[in-house]
Amino acid sequence: MNNHSAMDELISALSRLPSLGRRSAQRIALHMLSKRDDIMFPLADALVVAANTIKPCTICGYLDAQCPCKICADGSKNRDQICIVAGACDVWALEGSGAYHGLYHVTGGVLSAMDGITPNDLFLDTLVNRANSAKEVILALPSTVDGHTTAHYIVDMLRGSDVKITRLAQGMPVGGELDYMDAGTISTALHARRGNT
Amino acid sequence: MNNHSAMDELISALSRLPSLGRRSAQRIALHMLSKRDDIMFPLADALVVAANTIKPCTICGYLDAQCPCKICADGSKNRDQICIVAGACDVWALEGSGAYHGLYHVTGGVLSAMDGITPNDLFLDTLVNRANSAKEVILALPSTVDGHTTAHYIVDMLRGSDVKITRLAQGMPVGGELDYMDAGTISTALHARRGNT
Repeated sequence: MNNHSAMDELISALSRLPSLGRRSAQRIALHMLSKRDDIMFPLADALVVAANTIKPCTICGYLDAQCPCKICADGSKNRDQICIVAGACDVWALEGSGAYHGLYHVTGGVLSAMDGITPNDLFLDTLVNRANSAKEVILALPSTVDGHTTAHYIVDMLRGSDVKITRLAQGMPVGGELDYMDAGTISTALHARRGNT
Repeated sequence: MNNHSAMDELISALSRLPSLGRRSAQRIALHMLSKRDDIMFPLADALVVAANTIKPCTICGYLDAQCPCKICADGSKNRDQICIVAGACDVWALEGSGAYHGLYHVTGGVLSAMDGITPNDLFLDTLVNRANSAKEVILALPSTVDGHTTAHYIVDMLRGSDVKITRLAQGMPVGGELDYMDAGTISTALHARRGNT
């Protein structure tokens, strides 16, 4: 059909979003057009505001419109703990769990030889200084080869510091059934088995 | 977390799109923020332009930024045929098939007692006049109870007209296997069986 109509522009802009194919983009475009004031204008505003204001916090790397970010600025956080995560979505997951009350350090990814991600591409500059003023650094990077490499690199960086370094436990997820678990998880959970307390 | 940050606004605007849950919206928001110039600003522009310009064609009901729409304005279309469809996506499907070269009439939905959609909610005003100046009206409404009801209603509307009324054939989809077909399709395909030509 014609190449530069407003409809085509909308559909191709939508289909550039991750996980949306052209067909979902078409369906979404038609749905939007029936709810312009409810969906289209608010989304356009939110996009422009977010694109213009959201920046990585210069202290911890979390994405927020304010700097220091709302977590660094939150007086109720335990400043003795810093949890190192790969991305902002990991911060959301930990905050959502309600189980962690410390600060974060968001690296913005993990080292990857394949994708050419070097230490310079990650947000690590402030980490040693931050760790020196905390009591515990908790490594919560992904349980992948690249995540482990990154964790190793960070442990090396912090070698001169007195901070205690811990990692999230690995094992069976709560509610997980052996039958559905991969061999790596089962073997890790077996090796790390604990006394029945 | 905090309720009115730019990030939360963006995520909730995205999660209002059909088929996107909160988690996909979060993933999309983070992806976007790493590609602001490629994704966020173009999408915001496309949304505003589309919301301000795309309107139903006053002749056929198709959605386009120009009126008459690009299909009604296309001199190469066969003006003797009008295909009646429920939505713009059906026009895309028929245009994509390359098998139809006539005009369209987009009703904007089907009659539905359950959803309270009455003939006044559909775009049918111009239909009788249009049908009178054509040779064939092809009903291509959905093969659902509501689609059949709507088709019936339209056939009634066109009773005074000389136009030939046809419907898309029903039967087995090309490549369809009996094993996977619902009973209604199998029974329709059996009843409508044709001589082996």
